[in-house]
Amino acid sequence: MSDAYLVGAGQSDFGAFPEESYRSLFRAAYEAAEGSAGGVDPGDVDEAYVGTLGVGGRQLGLPGPAVTEHVGLHGVPCTRVENACAASGYALRSAVMAVKSGMVDLTLAGGFEVMTDASSEATRYWLGVSGETEWERMAGTTFSGVYAQMADAYMREYGVERESLSRVAVKNHANGAKNPRAHLRFTCSLEDAESAPVVADPLTLYHCCPTTDGAAAVFVASEEVAASFDDRVRIAGVGAASDRVGLFQRDTYTSIPASKRAAAAAYEIAGVGPDDLDFAEVHDCFAIAELLAYEDLGFCGRGEAAALIDSGATDPDGRLPVNTSGGLKSKGHPIGATGAGQAVEAFKQLTGGAGDRQLSDPRRGLTHNVGGSGGAAVVHVFEAEGADPAGADGRGVGA
Amino acid sequence: MSDAYLVGAGQSDFGAFPEESYRSLFRAAYEAAEGSAGGVDPGDVDEAYVGTLGVGGRQLGLPGPAVTEHVGLHGVPCTRVENACAASGYALRSAVMAVKSGMVDLTLAGGFEVMTDASSEATRYWLGVSGETEWERMAGTTFSGVYAQMADAYMREYGVERESLSRVAVKNHANGAKNPRAHLRFTCSLEDAESAPVVADPLTLYHCCPTTDGAAAVFVASEEVAASFDDRVRIAGVGAASDRVGLFQRDTYTSIPASKRAAAAAYEIAGVGPDDLDFAEVHDCFAIAELLAYEDLGFCGRGEAAALIDSGATDPDGRLPVNTSGGLKSKGHPIGATGAGQAVEAFKQLTGGAGDRQLSDPRRGLTHNVGGSGGAAVVHVFEAEGADPAGADGRGVGA
Repeated sequence: MSDAYLVGAGQSDFGAFPEESYRSLFRAAYEAAEGSAGGVDPGDVDEAYVGTLGVGGRQLGLPGPAVTEHVGLHGVPCTRVENACAASGYALRSAVMAVKSGMVDLTLAGGFEVMTDASSEATRYWLGVSGETEWERMAGTTFSGVYAQMADAYMREYGVERESLSRVAVKNHANGAKNPRAHLRFTCSLEDAESAPVVADPLTLYHCCPTTDGAAAVFVASEEVAASFDDRVRIAGVGAASDRVGLFQRDTYTSIPASKRAAAAAYEIAGVGPDDLDFAEVHDCFAIAELLAYEDLGFCGRGEAAALIDSGATDPDGRLPVNTSGGLKSKGHPIGATGAGQAVEAFKQLTGGAGDRQLSDPRRGLTHNVGGSGGAAVVHVFEAEGADPAGADGRGVGA
Repeated sequence: MSDAYLVGAGQSDFGAFPEESYRSLFRAAYEAAEGSAGGVDPGDVDEAYVGTLGVGGRQLGLPGPAVTEHVGLHGVPCTRVENACAASGYALRSAVMAVKSGMVDLTLAGGFEVMTDASSEATRYWLGVSGETEWERMAGTTFSGVYAQMADAYMREYGVERESLSRVAVKNHANGAKNPRAHLRFTCSLEDAESAPVVADPLTLYHCCPTTDGAAAVFVASEEVAASFDDRVRIAGVGAASDRVGLFQRDTYTSIPASKRAAAAAYEIAGVGPDDLDFAEVHDCFAIAELLAYEDLGFCGRGEAAALIDSGATDPDGRLPVNTSGGLKSKGHPIGATGAGQAVEAFKQLTGGAGDRQLSDPRRGLTHNVGGSGGAAVVHVFEAEGADPAGADGRGVGA
C-alpha cells in the first residue's frame, strides 16, 4: 500500500462573486493547485473527486465532470462526493483511498460552492437540506438554530460564558485578515462579537460563518509519483465516521461523536496523538463548533475548551494554533470547498507557503471537516517531509 | 492489492410505492443483500458508499448517512456518491477501491431513489438537472429529447429502422416479466412498441424506461473476508470515464465515448474482452442506449447493433444475453439504485440465484451504467468462482 501525498494545493478567492460561475471558481482553484505543484500535465491525472452540495440548484447531476471537463481533464473519471459541509473532506479521503488502492497514481480532490447569488429563501432551503429533513428542516429549524441549541446546552452544562464563543470569532478574524484569499478580511473585537445582532440565541452574527462562493483543489499522488514534485506533504492519517443526521436523534448536544471517532481513526493510522500536532484547521461553522472540536479532537478534556481558547493556546503564537487560515468564520464557508480548503492551508503551512500567517516550521497538522450538525465527520493528519517521529520533536499542545 | 468480491447483493422491489420512503426502500435492499450473504454483523461493515441523485428534494445533504444509520450501520463512514444515473455504479467502484486500498475489509455499496410521488413538473426538473444546465435544461430539453436526438442521428447514419429500437423493448419486457422485483412485469409486442404514443420522436413510450422507486445494495469484501461467505463473485475489472455533460458539447451523437473508455479500462484490468462474456446488463434508459452500448462495449462493430438485436443474439438463449433482469426498461430505473441493481443481477446470475431468468451456468458478466447522456460511465466485469481463464471456456459472443 503506497503512502499518499499532497503535491499541490490551491483555492480560488473565497467571497461574494456574483459575476463568477461554479466553473470559473473551480478553474481558479485548479490553476492555483496546478501552479503550486509546479505544473501538472492533465494527461497524468488518473482520477478526480469533487465535493459540492449543489446549493441553489445549479448543475445538480454530474457537477463533478462538469467542472473537471471544464479545466481540461478530458475523460478522467470523476466522482461527485457529497456529505454536506464535509463534501470535499470526503472527496480527499476518497482520493487517498484511490491512491492506496494502487489503481491510480495522481488524483485531483476538490470542491466548490456558489451561494451568494441565491435568494436568502433559496439559501435557507438549500442549507436546510443538510439538516434532518422531516423533523428539522420541515419544522423550520435552520442551521444557526441547530448550533445555537448546541451552544446553549454547552454553556449550561459547563457554566461557560458567551465571551468564550466570541474569542473564537476574534481569533479567527485576526487570522483571516492576514489571508489574501479569505472572504471577511477584517478583524473584530470582543465587543464587536458580543454586541452584534443575535442570529439564534446565544449566537450573534460574529458567531456564524458567512455565506461564501469559492472552490479549492489539491493533488494527491502515490509515493512514486510524488517523488517528481518539489513539494510533498504526507497524508499520514485519515479517519471518518457517520452519525444520525438529526441533532435531536443523538445522545449528546455538547459533543460531535462522529468527530471523536474520525479523529481516533486518523490518529491511529498516523501513529500520533493530539499532543504531536503543530496546528489544526477545524470546522468552525459556528463558534461553538470550534470549542466542541477542541474537545472531540482531544486538544483538551471535556468542558475545558473555553479555558483553552481563553488562554490563547490556539492563537498563532500559542501551543496549538487553530484555524490560521481564518477558518470557516473569516476565510469563509463555501460548503463543498471547505474540506479541500482546509487541506490547502495545511499544505501551505507545511511547505512554508502561508505568507503573513506562516507558522514557524510546523511539521504536523490536522484538518477536521464536519457535515451538517455532525452526521458526518472526516479528519486528516498531514506531515511535512522529514517530520520527526511522533512525540520526538518536543512540539505540540502537550509539549 | 487484494481482489474485491461481491459477497451479497439484493434489491427492494422496483416500482411505484407512494407509501414507502427512501429509508424503507433502502432497508428492504439492505436486508435482501444481508440475507443473500447469509447474514452480516453490522459491526463488521467498515465503510459504505450510497448513490442517489436526490430526485424530489428529499434528504439532499447527507442522504448516505441518513440511510446507513437507519439500517443499523451506526457510525460507519458513509460517502454519498452522485454521478446522475451512474451514482451507484460509481459507489460500487469506490467500494472496490476502498477494499483494494487495504484500509477496509467489508464495504456496503448501494443506492436509492424515490421518484413517483413527485409531481410530473418536479420530476422533469429533477431529471433535467442531470443534463447540461445552461444549454439543455434551461432551454427546455428533457432527457427523452436528448436520447431522441441520439436515436434520430443513429437511424440516419446507419439506415436503421425504428423496429430495431422496438426489439429492445420487446426483449427487455420479456425478461422483466420473469423478474419478481421488476417494475413493469408484462410483455410487449413489436406492435405495442411501434404503435405506442410518441414521447420524443422517434422514441415511443415503450422506448423509454419508467419512473421508478427503489433501492439496491451489495456487499464488497476483501479476498480474506470473502472466504468466510458462501457465495463469492470476483470483481475482475472496473473502469470509468467522464465526458462533457452536454450531448451538444461532444463530437458524436451516435456513440457514448465515456462508455468505450470505461469498458476498455475494465476489460484491460480483467484481462478479458467482449468475446469472453456470458451476459451483460447495460444501461437502456432509452432503447437507443442499448444499441449504442452494444457498439461501445464491443459486442459488435459500429453500425451493427440493429443487426445484433434483430438476430436474437442478445436474447436469453442467444450468444450474449443482455439485460436478463429486464433492464432499466422493464425492471425500472430508480436513478441512484440502478448501478447497484445491475450488480445484483450479475451476482444472482453468477451464483445461480436468478430464478426463472437464470442462464445456464454463466461464468462471466459485465455491468454498464451511464450518467446523464454520457457525462459519466462505469463498467464492471464479474466472474464466478472458478471461471475458466479468459477465452478458454468457448463461450461468449465470439464463440
